[in-house]
Amino acid sequence: MIDVKDLFAEDYINKEVSISGWIKNHRKQKEFGFIDFNDGTYFKNLQIVYDNSLDDFEEIQKLHIGSAITVAGKIIKSEGTGQSIEMKLISYKLEGDCPEDYPIQPKRHTREFLREQAYLRTRTNLFGAVFRVRSVAAYAIHKYFQDNGYVYFHAPIITAADAEGAGEMFQVTTLDLDKVAKSGKVDYTKDFFGKPASLTVSGQLQAESFALSYKKTYTFGPTFRAENSNTKTHASEFWMIEPEIAFCDLEGDMNIMEEMLKYVVKYVLDNLPEEMEFFDKFVENGLLEKLNKLINSKFTRIDHEEVIKILKEAPVKWEFQPEYGEDIAKEHEKYITEYFNGPVFIKNWPKDIKAFYMKQNPDGKTVAAVDLEVPGAGELMGGSQREEDYDKLVNRMDELGMKQDELDWYLNLRKFGGCVHSGFGMGFERLIIYLTGVDNIRDVIPYPRTPGNCDY
Amino acid sequence: MIDVKDLFAEDYINKEVSISGWIKNHRKQKEFGFIDFNDGTYFKNLQIVYDNSLDDFEEIQKLHIGSAITVAGKIIKSEGTGQSIEMKLISYKLEGDCPEDYPIQPKRHTREFLREQAYLRTRTNLFGAVFRVRSVAAYAIHKYFQDNGYVYFHAPIITAADAEGAGEMFQVTTLDLDKVAKSGKVDYTKDFFGKPASLTVSGQLQAESFALSYKKTYTFGPTFRAENSNTKTHASEFWMIEPEIAFCDLEGDMNIMEEMLKYVVKYVLDNLPEEMEFFDKFVENGLLEKLNKLINSKFTRIDHEEVIKILKEAPVKWEFQPEYGEDIAKEHEKYITEYFNGPVFIKNWPKDIKAFYMKQNPDGKTVAAVDLEVPGAGELMGGSQREEDYDKLVNRMDELGMKQDELDWYLNLRKFGGCVHSGFGMGFERLIIYLTGVDNIRDVIPYPRTPGNCDY
Repeated sequence: MIDVKDLFAEDYINKEVSISGWIKNHRKQKEFGFIDFNDGTYFKNLQIVYDNSLDDFEEIQKLHIGSAITVAGKIIKSEGTGQSIEMKLISYKLEGDCPEDYPIQPKRHTREFLREQAYLRTRTNLFGAVFRVRSVAAYAIHKYFQDNGYVYFHAPIITAADAEGAGEMFQVTTLDLDKVAKSGKVDYTKDFFGKPASLTVSGQLQAESFALSYKKTYTFGPTFRAENSNTKTHASEFWMIEPEIAFCDLEGDMNIMEEMLKYVVKYVLDNLPEEMEFFDKFVENGLLEKLNKLINSKFTRIDHEEVIKILKEAPVKWEFQPEYGEDIAKEHEKYITEYFNGPVFIKNWPKDIKAFYMKQNPDGKTVAAVDLEVPGAGELMGGSQREEDYDKLVNRMDELGMKQDELDWYLNLRKFGGCVHSGFGMGFERLIIYLTGVDNIRDVIPYPRTPGNCDY
Repeated sequence: MIDVKDLFAEDYINKEVSISGWIKNHRKQKEFGFIDFNDGTYFKNLQIVYDNSLDDFEEIQKLHIGSAITVAGKIIKSEGTGQSIEMKLISYKLEGDCPEDYPIQPKRHTREFLREQAYLRTRTNLFGAVFRVRSVAAYAIHKYFQDNGYVYFHAPIITAADAEGAGEMFQVTTLDLDKVAKSGKVDYTKDFFGKPASLTVSGQLQAESFALSYKKTYTFGPTFRAENSNTKTHASEFWMIEPEIAFCDLEGDMNIMEEMLKYVVKYVLDNLPEEMEFFDKFVENGLLEKLNKLINSKFTRIDHEEVIKILKEAPVKWEFQPEYGEDIAKEHEKYITEYFNGPVFIKNWPKDIKAFYMKQNPDGKTVAAVDLEVPGAGELMGGSQREEDYDKLVNRMDELGMKQDELDWYLNLRKFGGCVHSGFGMGFERLIIYLTGVDNIRDVIPYPRTPGNCDY
């Protein structure tokens, strides 16, 4: 089976080929016509030219936009500008017709309209490109980690563990809710797992067990948040990558974050030049420059305390006043990447605003955590060295009022050959937003789930 | 950071290296000692030899099994049999101790015992190998599809669609069950999505929308069944691969199934020879022969009706009598792969025992469905050509009493340039069981979920 991609990649000039795909556009003249043809394997359309020397010329002229056809023809050098090759049609077969009320017409549709037609939107240039970037970026991530000896870990999706403060969780149950309502009580002994269960918000804790077996591991799977946020950057279901590395401290962690990100960005630029050029032209002017600059830059590494100092000294009237010991706002992230003119690792954060498992620094105030801020997107990844000291970890859990029995096994990882280890998390959709310039998370997930929305 | 894998793959003879990992075994003599050392990146241990010429000889002798250490030493050719290289120790640093009651001792543990220690079992030879095979097989699957121009599709996990008869589903909710019990009624307008939602049992229907945009697509993600089955082959949460291809009929579908499976098996054999040899020796005698035979065989393709005829004529006293128009049992699967001495595609199944979306054959009795049966494992994949005819699909849904409004979009795919298309599904764990010979699904999922079990 020949793909449109093959026709552009290899030399088919003067060869006759047969190929199946869809009609993207159809321009008819009295004595000839042009079909923009694509099978979805390549960004560019193949132009098919035909004229009235064909017996079925009149039938061909009636072919609808959106129809599936198989065409046979000769590949020739294109006379026109804008394409290198085209096909001179010999014969065709209609595989599937398409009515005139087909929603995806060759004109500009708003993203909002296309969101309503999610099952068809991949047929447009924009979304066709977005979800190919999503696919290729996913592969680049796998390739980076596998080439570097990481073991891919499928973290459990259903969990009975309560992820401390990581966010609101969806409950998973086989109890019949009508019966619960009728009986007036909830009997978890009758539930599928014999206890309450939820959808995971992170596979990190379990990934640590793999890191302490395989040294290097990564997750790549769906995670969930039941937060009632209707913003451009929040979805209830999204994919995360969570690498975890033994014998690796915060500096090593940052090295990997930086190397991995550059690898993935370069891989996508190298493998999807047409799509990336399209985004640069029509979605985010300067996108290619931004990404190429990232690949070639050395990421700044700076303490949170230093960042606050810079922000305080900045000649800017802040909406949120920067403070030592506190989180930083979007406006601060933006300023700091502009200040350093490139990506910035902000490290050693105040412990009170970070998670219980992070490595406590000797100063007693900070933890060995890091956020990566990139120009134009803000926080892209977050990581930390993990607390490998059993007693310190238990004490921190006590301070926070956390139950230990549920996390016995996690604590035991510190007992049984525990060692310095670190990891990080990257929201996959955040990466796709960064790579494409498409700024709404609903437009980079095939069938997004948000509060009140669960279609398809 | 050097890995144990590097030491065996490249020439480090007479070089001094520093490397971190864990003590798998420690044999002490009066004047010298041997440490079996591994960092989890390779199946084989690195043997570390040391003697009493070292100042801290006595401390070294006290090192516990399970401890994390960093060692510096010279790589030398091994005098002993069973390993090509070893390390002559120069110095060491204890990274994390391990008490004597460490559950993973260098002796044979039962798989049942290790299931109770799931967070540590990857440190054993057996499970270390199982989950590396899982990782490499996952990558091989991605590599096969990406190299062949498929777009990776992340199917939604939470769904409001009712997957007709595909199995019991888990409900996903943010309703407070205690409040539901107290109030005596279930108000789905208050639920997160404003309606009942569940965990997906298959991404196929949605994947079809990608196939009809990109021609070739595949899913690889978690799927769920809330069935109360406690068997060796059932888990409540498992990963599936669901490719879907436009302009592809059942024959083309089988070609892809066959090519993909051979590719993945070969990739794992080529990339993990030590692990696969271990499984052949200690888990399933004849595994390598079985897999190599598969790679080199031409899969038989035969109609369901023919299979029933062969079974009926077989000189066997069946527990379940084979019948035209009915499903076949495990004993039949076994017989038929032995009969053909290799993998068998059974195709064109009675329509009444297959799903609504399968292509209706002209005979009016069968559908263009296929199951792949492999020697020693039974059914490994199932696929079908999909019904692309709008009216036939609607009629079949009517016959089965299915509601159409929920699947409007799915039906519309037949209207808007719909075409012949096919796909298949492969349970990822079933593949891992086939590849390793480890026959319980609980032993090929890192943290398995089954009725009553949701630990970690």
